[in-house]
Formats: sequence, structure tokens, C-alpha cells
Amino acid sequence: MAGKYHMLRHEKEILDPEAIRSILSSGRYASIALSGEDGPYVITLSYGYDKDRNCLYFHTAKRGRKLEMIEEDPRACATIIEDLGYRQGQCDHAYRSLVIHGRIILVEDPSEKMHALEVMIDHLEAGPDPVKERFLKREDSFDRAEILRMDIEDMNGRENG
Amino acid sequence: MAGKYHMLRHEKEILDPEAIRSILSSGRYASIALSGEDGPYVITLSYGYDKDRNCLYFHTAKRGRKLEMIEEDPRACATIIEDLGYRQGQCDHAYRSLVIHGRIILVEDPSEKMHALEVMIDHLEAGPDPVKERFLKREDSFDRAEILRMDIEDMNGRENG
Repeated sequence: MAGKYHMLRHEKEILDPEAIRSILSSGRYASIALSGEDGPYVITLSYGYDKDRNCLYFHTAKRGRKLEMIEEDPRACATIIEDLGYRQGQCDHAYRSLVIHGRIILVEDPSEKMHALEVMIDHLEAGPDPVKERFLKREDSFDRAEILRMDIEDMNGRENG
Repeated sequence: MAGKYHMLRHEKEILDPEAIRSILSSGRYASIALSGEDGPYVITLSYGYDKDRNCLYFHTAKRGRKLEMIEEDPRACATIIEDLGYRQGQCDHAYRSLVIHGRIILVEDPSEKMHALEVMIDHLEAGPDPVKERFLKREDSFDRAEILRMDIEDMNGRENG
């Protein structure tokens, strides 16, 4: 992406907050860098963007290395890529992307967990109502997974094309 | 991606080395987690996969935070996502993905830099010859950018769908 031969002539920062928000709103998943003693780690998770709280919510399995890493060091750097396609013959790739710095915490409050599931379903599903009904009434939606919240501290957009 | 409500019932590890290689070969860019004193950082770069050396080559701008971070700590964790689409009404996202652990170094040897550019063009371009001719003969292909190599130490694939 960044870094094709003549790419530096094309790539530019996205300064319009509405353009940044549209990438956030249309994205479906983010790749998130975490730091640990054993080195960096990257996970990719579906997300819901909560505009009012300026955070991303994620849903994840109860156990796993990422939860341990977040407890040790909550700092995170997420990226959302809007892939506009490789340009054959031009050694170039068109995209818009965001890089987001922030901190991730495990959400434990039941009402915030319910709120987070609603945010995710509203974000991800075009027709959310039947899906909401199906999932939000099921207690095992909570039992089988954890909710993570990434509070956005800083966000930069770039585009090429 | 990982982490939708009933997702744990679908996601599974990819054990077939050929399937893993096909994701590597068809991918066009990787998001790469790095660790630094200021926390984790993620960059997304076009890549070329060198099967013989079991490495990824990247092309990047000469200056930037990522080069400083790599010099301080060469450990990296890259992910390549094959997005097979969100499944409306199912709270689910189909994908294949790789998570790759390794180390990144700056390539300084001129013959390896030329080799890396060839690997990248062969990987990225469907009809590489005119592109190769155009870029590989231009001395400023080297002057304007740096080549990075990520030596693959460990690689895991997962799929959902």
C-alpha cells in the first residue's frame, strides 16, 4: 500500500473529518497492533464505531493471548483499510486508510456490554432489527464472549488515488 | 472478523500448507505490527512474497517512524486478510487470514534490492515485463525508497466460512 515506486507522489493525508468518519463508518474490521514482552502481535476483529463515545467496540473469545496482552499493556494501534484496488501496470494501489491510536479495555459492566452489542449490530448489519432481537435476548451472547472497547486518542487518515 | 457472536463455531485453523501459500500469493498488502517505546504501531504496505527465501519484501519511503522502530526492535507481526465478505443477517464475516511472526531488516545490498523489486513486481503485476523494464532500469527506484525484508519465522492461517 504505502510504498510503491512512485507512490509518494500520490499519497496524501486526509484532512476532512467527514471523510475520516466515512471510512470509520463503512469499515467492517480493524487490524490492531498490541505490544507484549514477546514482541508485537496483530489481531483483526469486526468492530462497531460509537460516534458519541468516540470509541470502537469489539467482540472476542473469552480466552486468548490478546486479553492477556491488553491487561499488561492497554496501548493499541488499529488500522482500517478501504481497499480501492491494485492498479495493474502502474505499480500502485489505491486506498483510503486510517491509523488509530488509543487504549483497549475489557468492558465488564453489563449495561455497557449490551450497548456495545447494539453498536456493533447497528454498524455491521444493514437491517439490524431481527438480528438484534435474536442476539440481544440471548444470555449466552455474553457468556460466550468478551467485549473490548478502544478509546480513540488520535486518528490519522491517508489516501492514495 | 474473529469475534462475532457465533463465530467461534465457524473459525478454524488452516492446516494445509498449500492453502496458506495461496493466501500469501494472492494477497497484495499486509498490515504489520511493530513495538516501540511509545507503544505499538501498525503500518500497511504492499508486499512481494519470495517463496525461495521464505520472506516478504516491502518498499517504503526513506524516512519515517517505522524505520526507526525497526532499528530499535526488528520483531514484527504481519497479517494478510482475504476478505470474503460480511454476511448480512448472520452477524458473521467470511475470511481467510494469516498471522506471520518474524523480523524485519533494512536491505542495503544493491543486488538484493534489485532482486526484491523483481519479486514485488512479479507478485503484484499480472503482466510484469513492461513494468519491470520501466522501473528496474531507473536508478531513482532505489534513490527514492528503501527495501525492507521480513524473514518469516512462524505463520498461522485461520478461516471462517
